[in-house]
Amino acid sequence: MMTERAARLHLTTHVLDPSPDCPASTFAATQIVADFDDARALEALAERSDVVTFDIERGNLPALQELMDRGTPVRPGPRVLTLIRDKLLQRRFLEASGLPMPRYAEVEGPLEDAAARFGYPFVQKARRDGYDGRGVAVLQGPEDLQRALSGPSMIEERIDIARELAVIVVRGADGEMRCYPTIETLVDPRRAVLDGLLFPAPISPEQEREAWSIAATAVCALDGVGSFTVEMFLDRSNRLTLNEVSPRPHNAGHVTIEAAETCQFEQHLRAVTGLPLGDTRLVRPAAMVNLLAQGSKQRGPVRVEGLDRALALSGVRLHLYGKTEAWAGRKMGHLTVLDDDPSRALDRAMRARDCLRIEAATEVAA
Amino acid sequence: MMTERAARLHLTTHVLDPSPDCPASTFAATQIVADFDDARALEALAERSDVVTFDIERGNLPALQELMDRGTPVRPGPRVLTLIRDKLLQRRFLEASGLPMPRYAEVEGPLEDAAARFGYPFVQKARRDGYDGRGVAVLQGPEDLQRALSGPSMIEERIDIARELAVIVVRGADGEMRCYPTIETLVDPRRAVLDGLLFPAPISPEQEREAWSIAATAVCALDGVGSFTVEMFLDRSNRLTLNEVSPRPHNAGHVTIEAAETCQFEQHLRAVTGLPLGDTRLVRPAAMVNLLAQGSKQRGPVRVEGLDRALALSGVRLHLYGKTEAWAGRKMGHLTVLDDDPSRALDRAMRARDCLRIEAATEVAA
Repeated sequence: MMTERAARLHLTTHVLDPSPDCPASTFAATQIVADFDDARALEALAERSDVVTFDIERGNLPALQELMDRGTPVRPGPRVLTLIRDKLLQRRFLEASGLPMPRYAEVEGPLEDAAARFGYPFVQKARRDGYDGRGVAVLQGPEDLQRALSGPSMIEERIDIARELAVIVVRGADGEMRCYPTIETLVDPRRAVLDGLLFPAPISPEQEREAWSIAATAVCALDGVGSFTVEMFLDRSNRLTLNEVSPRPHNAGHVTIEAAETCQFEQHLRAVTGLPLGDTRLVRPAAMVNLLAQGSKQRGPVRVEGLDRALALSGVRLHLYGKTEAWAGRKMGHLTVLDDDPSRALDRAMRARDCLRIEAATEVAA
Repeated sequence: MMTERAARLHLTTHVLDPSPDCPASTFAATQIVADFDDARALEALAERSDVVTFDIERGNLPALQELMDRGTPVRPGPRVLTLIRDKLLQRRFLEASGLPMPRYAEVEGPLEDAAARFGYPFVQKARRDGYDGRGVAVLQGPEDLQRALSGPSMIEERIDIARELAVIVVRGADGEMRCYPTIETLVDPRRAVLDGLLFPAPISPEQEREAWSIAATAVCALDGVGSFTVEMFLDRSNRLTLNEVSPRPHNAGHVTIEAAETCQFEQHLRAVTGLPLGDTRLVRPAAMVNLLAQGSKQRGPVRVEGLDRALALSGVRLHLYGKTEAWAGRKMGHLTVLDDDPSRALDRAMRARDCLRIEAATEVAA
């Protein structure tokens, strides 16, 4: 989605990705097929580029620093990546900027010791590589210790969540910042994965100001350049706390494609290339839902059913990503509906999703 | 733009185009590199396809008819193409459906004879292959005969135009039809090429109804399936006449990408594949301007200047088409602005265009 927008702006892109003919390569001038961590490949990428950015939080940190030292800007920079990739480092850094966050603690020795000090229930989070519900466990009491995460982790208080919010902040190399209207993200409680969202979130102007202030403070503290998504919890006593920051275009920001004046992908490109930032205002309130593959966990070619019924609903904007394989739980696309009333939009988006069935087409033995 | 939308809807496309790696092939599963008229290539395309459509009014008519006879639907069909490709046949056919149109006449013998019978001033139009201002001449008097078009042509009265209007009509294989709000097209009088547009056109509800009625009648008479653009003249005495019909997504319809609930490319795909038609309502009023290359008529690699100033204007949606070569007058992209007041949107779009300079980057000898 980023390289497609780049083409529209006459920006030439080169892509580094381990999968030959990866989706981003569709609009790229060239693709370097190599692992994200491959230092030589990163160097080759930098040689072709005026600026280097990413849409996944990978990449060899010393190699990225080396590119910077040799004069190729990496935006956001390796320092941001270092802080973001480790949830504990991220927390500590942002706490030092005075941002409100859930009570948390490092797990140094055995988890039961940390748990005993911290008190149940709590949420255990893997320090690294957590994504779409992976790397998060809720422990109600000592009896749950057997299904705790292994590996380096942190623990934090279990927030009594009223709403989960996200603010997309775009920040230019000159420090100019713009926030999009706050999004309410709807997280599937079973899978801890983004299920859908309302844009804008149904919150008060005071809450909006507070959310913007937290988001802008976090991105500014990180000295971030690009499009960032700052996720927050609003608890039942009206307290807003920072959850985490994504230093790249984010699933929640897909709604900006149709519902905002400038989409997050174009904003990210504008920011990292030094072009003026775009307008972040709403075009029309909206809702978005993710489309995950259903059926079996076994991989197989994609089958989509119910397109005719889904598209018969008015104003359904379907985005299937053209992935060639499906398995249960894989994100295959999303669906946006614009409506002056975002909850009505959500209702329509969910009805459209209910019409669709996306799954791996597997041969069934007779 | 059509194959990109097809991918989002999980429709697989195969493209026939004489240029290897043509833009449409970016999202296509395969490309057949052959001339548009190549009967064997059309047959190979049909073998891979459930339905055949086009975005340029070319293609071998007997070969297309053959595909139909063998059971592959061609939408719109060869009959529509036959009528559309010849402006005189088109006029006669639509006139027989009772549609209001400018007074016209066939040119059979020498043009001066037809002109003498018809009376000056008049507009001479090539019967075939007119496009973007090619194939149109205005003759004020006998002194202009020397710069008349050669080849088969027709002549028509010169309308005292108040506005040029366009209605996009989408029609399904089952005959369901939907009209988009009427567009006012702004035609560059020097080049007779689309310069910009206002969406919706600033016309009265009565005029809108009349425009829709003409457009729907024309597409229904043609038994068209797909997205059609019906161009009309509104003259200074408030008379509305049909100019011509395009049986495909059209330059004017690019504004529907952001400003309507469903864009013309998706509508065309929905119609020709038998999916339900989409909502044609406005998301927000808008203006669009075309971006033509400036400078020299000599071909050369594309240079774009002024991007930073153009993008500093709020709400500018830039669409550059990624063409690899430019020459003066070539369509290189377009630019859309949404605003509740379309004339304010047009003002901003024109200011953004004035900031841009797109031209062939030619080496200048020292």
